[in-house]
Formats: sequence, structure tokens, C-alpha cells
Amino acid sequence: MKIKPQIRVLGIDDGSLEGEEILLVGVVFRGGFWIDGLLSAWIKKDGTDATEKIIFMVKNTKHEDLRVIMTDGITFAGFNTIDIEKISRETSLGVIPVMRRMPDFKKIGRALDNFADKQERWQCIEKAGPIHCIPVHRGVLYFQCAGLEKEEAEKIIGLTCMHSQIPEPVRVAHIIATGIIRGEASRKP
Amino acid sequence: MKIKPQIRVLGIDDGSLEGEEILLVGVVFRGGFWIDGLLSAWIKKDGTDATEKIIFMVKNTKHEDLRVIMTDGITFAGFNTIDIEKISRETSLGVIPVMRRMPDFKKIGRALDNFADKQERWQCIEKAGPIHCIPVHRGVLYFQCAGLEKEEAEKIIGLTCMHSQIPEPVRVAHIIATGIIRGEASRKP
Repeated sequence: MKIKPQIRVLGIDDGSLEGEEILLVGVVFRGGFWIDGLLSAWIKKDGTDATEKIIFMVKNTKHEDLRVIMTDGITFAGFNTIDIEKISRETSLGVIPVMRRMPDFKKIGRALDNFADKQERWQCIEKAGPIHCIPVHRGVLYFQCAGLEKEEAEKIIGLTCMHSQIPEPVRVAHIIATGIIRGEASRKP
Repeated sequence: MKIKPQIRVLGIDDGSLEGEEILLVGVVFRGGFWIDGLLSAWIKKDGTDATEKIIFMVKNTKHEDLRVIMTDGITFAGFNTIDIEKISRETSLGVIPVMRRMPDFKKIGRALDNFADKQERWQCIEKAGPIHCIPVHRGVLYFQCAGLEKEEAEKIIGLTCMHSQIPEPVRVAHIIATGIIRGEASRKP
């Protein structure tokens, strides 16, 4: 995979948990440099529609030059867990979930006990594969990947972490999603 | 007024005219470089609340380092016209409305005939003062200003027109506001 500094990246994050329909924002970035476009969708709180909504978003955009999707972890709108393998397969794009901290799987497992379809949700988490760690700025970033090599994901993270420990497309998706719902953005994803 | 390349600018634009409440997005930019935050509000279609909503937005933000407001013209949500003098006075910030084309005042006057308070709305337009023109990239940009000198406004336009003929904070506010409402942004403000 050829990775140019201005590789088109879709950064995805969700808004605050207010109501039953949660805003999902996708920001089209050129590398970590500037915004080319914005996609949005509404997903169900604790639902199972995030995977399909992201696939629909990407398949129907006019931004045909997208190469990679970076997401703020793999659960949105509470426990609306995404299947990154399926997203990668159906969109033909690489998918890189990034996390500021190592997820607490014990806590997640306990929370999932409340769901009748616990098994399917847990499977999404397992299918997302191993969690890697990369030094960025003065900290570290955890990430997973589907549809591209770990080394390629590392290169893209390096290119997009311009101003913080969070890749610019995900940082900005977070600012927009929370700013629209709350009236003002919270500082960190 | 001291103008640094990373001067904090609030870029404002509205979303598509769908429904009676129209989304107003304010993006906090460092010069034309990157996004620091996002503010939002809802204003009434053809209402008279845009001026107050912008003043409230700015007075209540945690972004205390804001210096200038750049807006996509002076009418939002149909004919919700803003009073840039009042916004400047009450927020102590410079205000720079920018326009891709020279407004057609005859057309605006005819459209305002439908409003009982035509006089007040027309006054906002008159109070916004002369329209200046500045070359940017391979075109020109029209602008007005309140609370700062024309030469200062020109300098700020020069600093923020990074990727197009529209200053980056206004370009991005447009992408976000239309992208949230329509699911995908239209290309140009």
C-alpha cells in the first residue's frame, strides 16, 4: 500500500450519549493536514447498526479517494460495537481503531452481561484482533487494524498525529460530534 | 491590533434550510491552521435571533483567546440578518463577514418586502458598512468589517485563506454545518 502524506483518511467518532439516536461524524482529512469533507449518520444507543451505517456512509460518499478509516475505538453510542473486518471487506479500505488507553476487557465483559446478544457483541471485540502500541509525541497510542498491515497503520498514525497524541481526523471528529450535540466541544476524545 | 499567524478565529456558517430551526456552527481555528474547538447553536429560519445567539456563543465559550469572528456573509437561516456592529461591541472582538460574490442589494430589498420588520432588517445590512474587495489565490473575496481596521481584516484574510478563496475557518464551518444536516457536505460555501 502506497502511503502519501496527503492520504485521504476518514476519522470517525460519536457525539454525547443524549437521547436514543446518537450522532456519528466522519471527517474526510488529507493526511493530518486539512478537512476535505464531512459525513454524518445517526446510530442507535446500545444498538447494533454502527457497522452498517459506517459501510453505507463510505459507499455513498462522493469522496472516492478515501483510503483509510480511523475510528475512536470500536464501540460507539454506548455498546454499538463495530465489526472492523466487515467494514474493511465491504468498503475495501483499511480500518484503524485508535485508543488513548488499553481497554479494560473485564469491565467490558461485565457490562455486556446486560445484553441478550452478548455473544455477538463480544465476537466483534475478539474479531478486532490484537491491540498494538506506538509511541506518539510524549505518550503512546493503542491501535488495532483490519485490511492493512500493522506497519502501514503505524505509518499512517505517524502522518496524522500532528498536534496531539490522537490522529488529527479522529481528534477533529470528536470535537465536531460533541460540539454539535452539546453546543461546545469537550477537549479530548 | 497585533495579528499573529495563529490568531484565534471563530468561523461561522449555517446548515441547510431544513425545518424551522437552523444549525449555526462556529469553528475555533488557530489562524488557518487547525481546529481548536467547535461551538453550535440553533437559530430560527427567517428569524431575528442570530445576532443574540452568536453573542451568547462567544460570551459563554471556554475559548477565551478568541480575537476575531469571520462569518459567511451577514444573513443566516434565510433572512436572519446579523448586526455586526453589535456583535463586535458586545463581544469585544473584530467581525469580518466574507462573501464570494458582491451581494445583489436590489434582490435582497425585494425579498425583504415580504417581512413586516423590513426596516430593521435593512438597517442591519446598512449598518454593516462598505463592502471591500481583496485578491486571494486566483480570485477575489468581498468582505466587510466591524471593530477592526480594513487593513487588519485584510491581513487576517491573507493568513486564513490557506487552501481556497474562502478563509479556512468559514470554509470548514460550512463543510461541518451542511454535512451534519445533509449527511454529506456540499462543496462550497
